[in-house]
Amino acid sequence: MKAAVAAILAGMVIAGGVSAQTAAPAVKEDFKPSSLNQPGQQFPQVNSQGYARFRIVAPDAQAVKVSLGLGGRGGTVLAKGADGIWTGTSEGPLDEGFHYYHLTVDGGTFNDPGTLNYFGSTRWESGIEIPANDAEFYALKSVPHGNVSQVLFPSPSTGAQRRAFVYTPPGYDAAAGTRYPVLYLQHGWGEDETAWSNQGHANLIMDNLIAAGKTRPFIIVMTYGMTNDARPGTLPNFDVKPFETVLVKELIPYIDGHFRTLSDRGHRAMAGLSMGGFETKAIAPKNLDTFAYIGLLSGGTFSLEDVNGTPGYKDKVKLTFVSFGSRELEGNRAGPPGQPRADPRVNAEALKGAGYNSAFYVSPNTGHEFLTWRRSLYQLAPLLFRD
Amino acid sequence: MKAAVAAILAGMVIAGGVSAQTAAPAVKEDFKPSSLNQPGQQFPQVNSQGYARFRIVAPDAQAVKVSLGLGGRGGTVLAKGADGIWTGTSEGPLDEGFHYYHLTVDGGTFNDPGTLNYFGSTRWESGIEIPANDAEFYALKSVPHGNVSQVLFPSPSTGAQRRAFVYTPPGYDAAAGTRYPVLYLQHGWGEDETAWSNQGHANLIMDNLIAAGKTRPFIIVMTYGMTNDARPGTLPNFDVKPFETVLVKELIPYIDGHFRTLSDRGHRAMAGLSMGGFETKAIAPKNLDTFAYIGLLSGGTFSLEDVNGTPGYKDKVKLTFVSFGSRELEGNRAGPPGQPRADPRVNAEALKGAGYNSAFYVSPNTGHEFLTWRRSLYQLAPLLFRD
Repeated sequence: MKAAVAAILAGMVIAGGVSAQTAAPAVKEDFKPSSLNQPGQQFPQVNSQGYARFRIVAPDAQAVKVSLGLGGRGGTVLAKGADGIWTGTSEGPLDEGFHYYHLTVDGGTFNDPGTLNYFGSTRWESGIEIPANDAEFYALKSVPHGNVSQVLFPSPSTGAQRRAFVYTPPGYDAAAGTRYPVLYLQHGWGEDETAWSNQGHANLIMDNLIAAGKTRPFIIVMTYGMTNDARPGTLPNFDVKPFETVLVKELIPYIDGHFRTLSDRGHRAMAGLSMGGFETKAIAPKNLDTFAYIGLLSGGTFSLEDVNGTPGYKDKVKLTFVSFGSRELEGNRAGPPGQPRADPRVNAEALKGAGYNSAFYVSPNTGHEFLTWRRSLYQLAPLLFRD
Repeated sequence: MKAAVAAILAGMVIAGGVSAQTAAPAVKEDFKPSSLNQPGQQFPQVNSQGYARFRIVAPDAQAVKVSLGLGGRGGTVLAKGADGIWTGTSEGPLDEGFHYYHLTVDGGTFNDPGTLNYFGSTRWESGIEIPANDAEFYALKSVPHGNVSQVLFPSPSTGAQRRAFVYTPPGYDAAAGTRYPVLYLQHGWGEDETAWSNQGHANLIMDNLIAAGKTRPFIIVMTYGMTNDARPGTLPNFDVKPFETVLVKELIPYIDGHFRTLSDRGHRAMAGLSMGGFETKAIAPKNLDTFAYIGLLSGGTFSLEDVNGTPGYKDKVKLTFVSFGSRELEGNRAGPPGQPRADPRVNAEALKGAGYNSAFYVSPNTGHEFLTWRRSLYQLAPLLFRD
């Protein structure tokens, strides 16, 4: 019954109008297929205002809902048409950038057959892209492209052959005499080593920055950051130590042995988003003979007490980069769950005032989502390895 | 009503027994999660006989069906339990190896949320793996591993930046002075450039062959083989010419310019599965200044008339490799739809009798599926580049 009522409400939105209850703006009928759709798929679609429209074929279903809605906080209940096809439009515009979502069909969780899938929330989920006003910086352009290589490396500490993806910049293969700095870049909770390429377009961001002469070419290494239980609800008990061993004792020596790296600490960075920032903060300051550049992307902040209390930080760390999406800073939300609330701007300013090379960036009109992190990488890359 | 009856029948199978109607063997209760399941997912499962068991949560659904069944030719209708969960077991054992499948939930097509997805039938589909008796040859082992690199190359003829995956063998990065032969390896209809790595484990097959000293290390390049309409039903009108241009005029020069290849014709091979074999047969004999080794995997056959009618074939082609799954040869099914029916063994023998280096391989107890092609690559690789 509840679903039926919601479906009727959704039907009103589909009909396209301003309703007295919601005072929503008129929905422009300029919908186009999302750029993340599977080949030939026409739905989901996005309009110029950022509304998303969904279309699901399930003629005998009782209820179909999409986990995306107004500002990403609600859901969109689809309504069944006379043709047996379920359609619906988000109640409001979605934030620009990438969003995970899934369907609920008759109480079961499924992906939208129209879209590509992305690993998030410990499962492959549907993805939709609301075109960003600055989407050019991560677009696939006619510039020289680097490669993203799948690498399988031995990990005695976990008894496994583990996987990493390695971005090598354009020209790497031809420049046989050149060695490159390396950024170790971590995904967030529930994601994996595919996230920074698939959702993040890290390779395209670098290709475009390098083509524009805005960053020094460097290697990026992306591996899976969870060596233990990754189920929902387990984050508070996450132990970073096994991953620290994989990263510092196994992966870094493998990369230095198989790629043309500059393998001194001054040419190695660690950064991560969300849980990957938490890992970076836990690992990098303890390994300052390994890393000289540190970045936290929506993943906590360094206070003056943090850095002053870390032996060698002042002398050895060449950059402390912290970023957030603007919506994360609303209502004093700064940092992953379980972290103490602090104003990251104040922390960043305090570091700067104390003579640290501290950079702080806020992505406009984005939350704890991938457009924040694409933009953060775009800001971070030019600040790395400036020697 | 029909669905309800089928669900009851499926329920009988789930209950586990031999039924008088089907005379099926007793289903052994030693089911384990498929190796292709998403992290932490317990279903689908496979038992030691090759039966597959499915479990789908969709408490309010009216009917749930799986597109896999006896010998891959039918479907498995799931039955709803008292807990609102749909379960069912295939009516018989499935062939060993990899199978694509999807769900039909209340008339809609969805993927099984338990499994990883693989690009086939022009969409990302669910995958399940029935462990093969010879699965060791494509297993991830503790041996040196090559890399699989995503490469984005410019294609003026199609006005796009196109994608290829490039396998480089173990030791490639360290062996700065060494150059390698190259196999261009094509996927089948409805698949894409991800198929040979994801479904085919081409990289692991090579890693294992190289570790055992059974093949010369070489590079494999895998790109998308359809430059035009890839919708179902369009295969008969497929025009190979645009892809020939991409491959010969654009991709090969890019690879030779960016990887340490042996770039003479004597160190270059082309092979493909199904439609990729059709493409290989259409492209390679016309470009004998480019390719010296030719392989058709479940993708047609070369008759003596074919090769005698191709200028230069006898002098220039160092190997003609043809393979099929044994089930493809049952009932005289040999070759993709639209191809003339011919006995490929007779053709292969005729070539051999006429002095051609002709190799023929039949994969036991497999059909037009990926275990046939994994095994075919395992047979083909040691025959390549023996100079």
